[in-house]
Amino acid sequence: MKKFMDNDFLLESDAAKELYRSASKLPIIDYHCHLDAKEIYENKKFRSLTEAWLHGDHYKWRALRNMGVPEKLITGDAEDYDKFVAWATVMPYLAGNPLYHFSHMELKNYLGISTPLSKETAKEIYEKANERLLKLGARDIMKLANVECVITTNDPTESLTYHKKLQEEGFEIKVLPAFRPDKAIAIDKPGFREYIASLSEASGMEISDFDSLMYALEGRLDYFISLGARASDHGLDYVPAYSDKALSAETAFEFALAGKPLEKADMDNYKVELLVRLGILYYKKDIVMEIHFGCVRNPNSAMFSSIGPDSGFDSVRGTSFGDGLYPILDSLSRAGTLPKTLLFSLNASDNELLVSMAGAFNNDGKVPGKVQQGSAWWFNDHLEGMKRQIATFAAGAPIGSFIGMLTDSRSFLSYARHDYFRRIFCNYLGSLADSGQYPAEGMSYLNEIAENVAYYNVKNYFGL
Amino acid sequence: MKKFMDNDFLLESDAAKELYRSASKLPIIDYHCHLDAKEIYENKKFRSLTEAWLHGDHYKWRALRNMGVPEKLITGDAEDYDKFVAWATVMPYLAGNPLYHFSHMELKNYLGISTPLSKETAKEIYEKANERLLKLGARDIMKLANVECVITTNDPTESLTYHKKLQEEGFEIKVLPAFRPDKAIAIDKPGFREYIASLSEASGMEISDFDSLMYALEGRLDYFISLGARASDHGLDYVPAYSDKALSAETAFEFALAGKPLEKADMDNYKVELLVRLGILYYKKDIVMEIHFGCVRNPNSAMFSSIGPDSGFDSVRGTSFGDGLYPILDSLSRAGTLPKTLLFSLNASDNELLVSMAGAFNNDGKVPGKVQQGSAWWFNDHLEGMKRQIATFAAGAPIGSFIGMLTDSRSFLSYARHDYFRRIFCNYLGSLADSGQYPAEGMSYLNEIAENVAYYNVKNYFGL
Amino acid sequence: MKKFMDNDFLLESDAAKELYRSASKLPIIDYHCHLDAKEIYENKKFRSLTEAWLHGDHYKWRALRNMGVPEKLITGDAEDYDKFVAWATVMPYLAGNPLYHFSHMELKNYLGISTPLSKETAKEIYEKANERLLKLGARDIMKLANVECVITTNDPTESLTYHKKLQEEGFEIKVLPAFRPDKAIAIDKPGFREYIASLSEASGMEISDFDSLMYALEGRLDYFISLGARASDHGLDYVPAYSDKALSAETAFEFALAGKPLEKADMDNYKVELLVRLGILYYKKDIVMEIHFGCVRNPNSAMFSSIGPDSGFDSVRGTSFGDGLYPILDSLSRAGTLPKTLLFSLNASDNELLVSMAGAFNNDGKVPGKVQQGSAWWFNDHLEGMKRQIATFAAGAPIGSFIGMLTDSRSFLSYARHDYFRRIFCNYLGSLADSGQYPAEGMSYLNEIAENVAYYNVKNYFGL
Repeated sequence: MKKFMDNDFLLESDAAKELYRSASKLPIIDYHCHLDAKEIYENKKFRSLTEAWLHGDHYKWRALRNMGVPEKLITGDAEDYDKFVAWATVMPYLAGNPLYHFSHMELKNYLGISTPLSKETAKEIYEKANERLLKLGARDIMKLANVECVITTNDPTESLTYHKKLQEEGFEIKVLPAFRPDKAIAIDKPGFREYIASLSEASGMEISDFDSLMYALEGRLDYFISLGARASDHGLDYVPAYSDKALSAETAFEFALAGKPLEKADMDNYKVELLVRLGILYYKKDIVMEIHFGCVRNPNSAMFSSIGPDSGFDSVRGTSFGDGLYPILDSLSRAGTLPKTLLFSLNASDNELLVSMAGAFNNDGKVPGKVQQGSAWWFNDHLEGMKRQIATFAAGAPIGSFIGMLTDSRSFLSYARHDYFRRIFCNYLGSLADSGQYPAEGMSYLNEIAENVAYYNVKNYFGL
Repeated sequence: MKKFMDNDFLLESDAAKELYRSASKLPIIDYHCHLDAKEIYENKKFRSLTEAWLHGDHYKWRALRNMGVPEKLITGDAEDYDKFVAWATVMPYLAGNPLYHFSHMELKNYLGISTPLSKETAKEIYEKANERLLKLGARDIMKLANVECVITTNDPTESLTYHKKLQEEGFEIKVLPAFRPDKAIAIDKPGFREYIASLSEASGMEISDFDSLMYALEGRLDYFISLGARASDHGLDYVPAYSDKALSAETAFEFALAGKPLEKADMDNYKVELLVRLGILYYKKDIVMEIHFGCVRNPNSAMFSSIGPDSGFDSVRGTSFGDGLYPILDSLSRAGTLPKTLLFSLNASDNELLVSMAGAFNNDGKVPGKVQQGSAWWFNDHLEGMKRQIATFAAGAPIGSFIGMLTDSRSFLSYARHDYFRRIFCNYLGSLADSGQYPAEGMSYLNEIAENVAYYNVKNYFGL
Repeated sequence: MKKFMDNDFLLESDAAKELYRSASKLPIIDYHCHLDAKEIYENKKFRSLTEAWLHGDHYKWRALRNMGVPEKLITGDAEDYDKFVAWATVMPYLAGNPLYHFSHMELKNYLGISTPLSKETAKEIYEKANERLLKLGARDIMKLANVECVITTNDPTESLTYHKKLQEEGFEIKVLPAFRPDKAIAIDKPGFREYIASLSEASGMEISDFDSLMYALEGRLDYFISLGARASDHGLDYVPAYSDKALSAETAFEFALAGKPLEKADMDNYKVELLVRLGILYYKKDIVMEIHFGCVRNPNSAMFSSIGPDSGFDSVRGTSFGDGLYPILDSLSRAGTLPKTLLFSLNASDNELLVSMAGAFNNDGKVPGKVQQGSAWWFNDHLEGMKRQIATFAAGAPIGSFIGMLTDSRSFLSYARHDYFRRIFCNYLGSLADSGQYPAEGMSYLNEIAENVAYYNVKNYFGL
């Protein structure tokens, strides 16, 4: 029986261990996360492991609920310690779950605790962790984790005050914003007109039609870029399709501003056109375009009413809308304005689709992996999900072009996921050598791939 | 080379073997099957292994047909022995098929035969098995298999005479009915009006509108409950969606009773409303709601005409209608009337969807795993399918909340599948410990999970 | 660490090695490929490894593009040697990709080169390979690979001159045409009327309506059969569905001939009817019907304009249209005219669907595996993809009925893929014995299955 989470955790061959020794030393570039720059600036400290772990992590909330824990002990007003005990009590039943691995890696890597967590060890761990957290602010954790750069996700209307302050201060870790104009695309959601008004205010431009909308967005994008932005992001529940029987994007937008009713097809035309026009901007300004789709957001309306979005109630969409991306990518490609593009679907059945789709537009002649599938996302971000994503990517595209891992996380302790990914990735490469699928004399190439996927590829891809 | 199907069959680590030693001793609760209570009551004996194995098992029929065996030797009028020889002849070509494992486990566990089956050994095995079957009735097999409870699947119009007799007699194994009102939902199928008439008769209530339909169904459900029913079941080819442009459920039902034509959207509104209203009843009466979807039934119309349904000609539906379940679950959840719910799709690509969907409604605060994906169903009920379902469940929800296996079978010998599942499940847990993913000091927790998933969880979930 | 690609490559147990020893000696029947009969007739020689490997292989083109190699070095006018160096340079980054395995197997099996390919070894390998290729024509490679028969893919209008010449000459390897009337089905594509005119010319029959179209196609099919054709093929982007609200196939065809506009539903009716009518012909003439679907062809319109189809820009379709096949297969089955049928989808998520669909129509009573899923196709033709296809087939149907591998290739060196498949398949069977899932005394059966799937099944299935 292998020791629990020892240094060789998940590394099943000598080749894997050798590759991991190099890759694990490299800094972390976390190109997509949901950290709050203010908390970094203020070197946020956590009053307890409960605050660090359970105040914002909807993955853990969901696991607690799924074990029948009452909401009071999750997002309710229970005491920190009681919430922690609830979590510790659930932990052993999460065998095979990424939270089991992530939690123990975080305890070990950042808090110096190797005891497995359960209700029996809850008190001891809670006390030890809290003591350690007293001395460990957000910045300290980031340094401890060898972070070089994080890219947060921000609405175009955000002032990015704390990104600016961090840069003015010269904080050694880069904290860059990513441009995520989801609300400008969401013409079908309540609050759209109010959002356009706030965008108008943020940009200092009147928005009266599609063109002025584009100017306002470009203005904000330029502002983001002035603070080092290298990436944009689009969270699409589904991928819209253009219809020549519906209103033009321009007219649809004017209707929306005027409060006139729109059909779904009209709104989809608006969405498609806006995505394409933004894609062109990204291309011109060398900004990476990330596209996320395949979710059903907030299907549990009662919980949405009571505790809002991003609380652990989202889900996978069964109907893939992946095919809808072909014409969008083609429009951009045909015009010679296809930006670097990363594709993510929450439905693991789309893995093969995304790898092949990326491959069909990945002919830039310069940038390796210019269009590529991103790493296993959200519900797929676990051992089997990562293995499957890596193997599918390798089978369909040069794995040497993969830009690797991101946390997509709200938590400062989540860098352990990069370690997790590196172990899985090195184990994958090592197993090829170990099983005679890659020659022993090629170990230096495997090492180069391991280092590239851990660090250099993402650095080059985003120009960091 | 490991010995064929020895005691350590499918158990690849010491940890797995240790876990299996405990879990294998627990009784079996088979919460979903298609046994005939009459055959249990009469302690049905089988005149031959052909009758026991081949008279109703459409999995085997399909395998025979797929090897080019003529129908005469399958469902035709050939002699029992000739049919058995046909099956024995096909057997060796089923390497890697669950029927290969199930058949040999049944021979070994219940008939004391360890010889691999082939045309060469057919005669010897046939004679030995038949001799044993002379002394082994349905009840004896169930006792031999350590069965504690079975839940059969029954139409609301059934009188449940034999369930009643078994209970009056005090048979030591619980034989409970499950309420499956598929025909009441099938407003689009021939015979609907006739079915409503028979439901009216069975319930002793006139059914003239939607409300009286609900009363009649509730009456029957109460009758089922009086005989110990704890579960309902719904077999949906696809999941209907509500449309506000179609007739209301009430009007659609009245049209149907009057023989007036209906559009698909009208009928779907009826189906959605009936599912929701039944869900509310289940919640009030603490009845588990099982939902099965993702099949194409009877696509081979020639064979359907000649030998009817459930004969081995059903298939997987490629178009997932899983998304359609979100609004149904949400309606129930919003009203605070979501019953315990088990989700099954025949399409293995829906695994991730179902685990995440369940997780989005699994916030009862009391019942662990209240909404959950059921175990690998039908065409997925095999080694790889089970492994995949277990790993997907564990990655997305606490595996400790899983209620485990069911046979979904028409055969008294099929309890070997519970043994099969327990081996695969214990092997899964054991591999976590063996590979350093779970600590050695946590073996008592793994043991608890193994026992819970084998027995205690399903017992608690159904309140048995 | 296992030696790179030694004799036991991919064979992980003694049982697997034993099975492979037999299966590997059998000849190759490549029942679906895209070779040019003219090149076989002329015993085409290759001026360089670049010509042999890189002049037509769009799998390699895609891999090159995905690593950022400019088009000039792929399909452009660069020197052969420079193109080869580009390929050699990319090679090490294709760890885990089938091209890595295929390329090295081809070097080893046919060119006597065991050195791993990289930019460092490019020159040495290029020179050695070219020297060898001087003496090695297309026919020599085929003999070296122990090929017994290849089936090429041909349009009904083709004269098949070189198939004829090869047969007149008495070439020891059978080179047979397969009938692929995709252009006759593509009523929605530009050039349809021109194609019908050329079909009319090729068949010597006037085509004025649906019936005369069928006569013309039957005439061409008979001609193909006179040259030994045993197979047809259909490449469907999606599977059309019949609608009773659209024009009949006959009327739709007449509209098309007259240049009148058609709706999609009209054209789909034409397609469905033509597929069914062709299926009946295939049944009558004992021709295998192959159906391929699940692709998006040429989504990258810029590259399609500049270098045309089949250049490495196709992709997987996310929306499965698999369900549409049920009524087509049922029409044929109901009429008693269902031909032997092979089903392929480019979307790996359809694996389970296809195995179950095939099983629902596989009741001929004579031919084992009459309707079956074909081996892992195109983007799925890799180690994991093959393993998954084999395991899914075995779990859902008798693996002993599987007709095995095809190359689907344009390259004379691609027979290494049969060796690859045989290794994977024997390893699968061997692992069953090795892990106690199949009895040691059944090794002769496993050996029979291995040989059947390698050779005898496809020979019997196509009547070769």
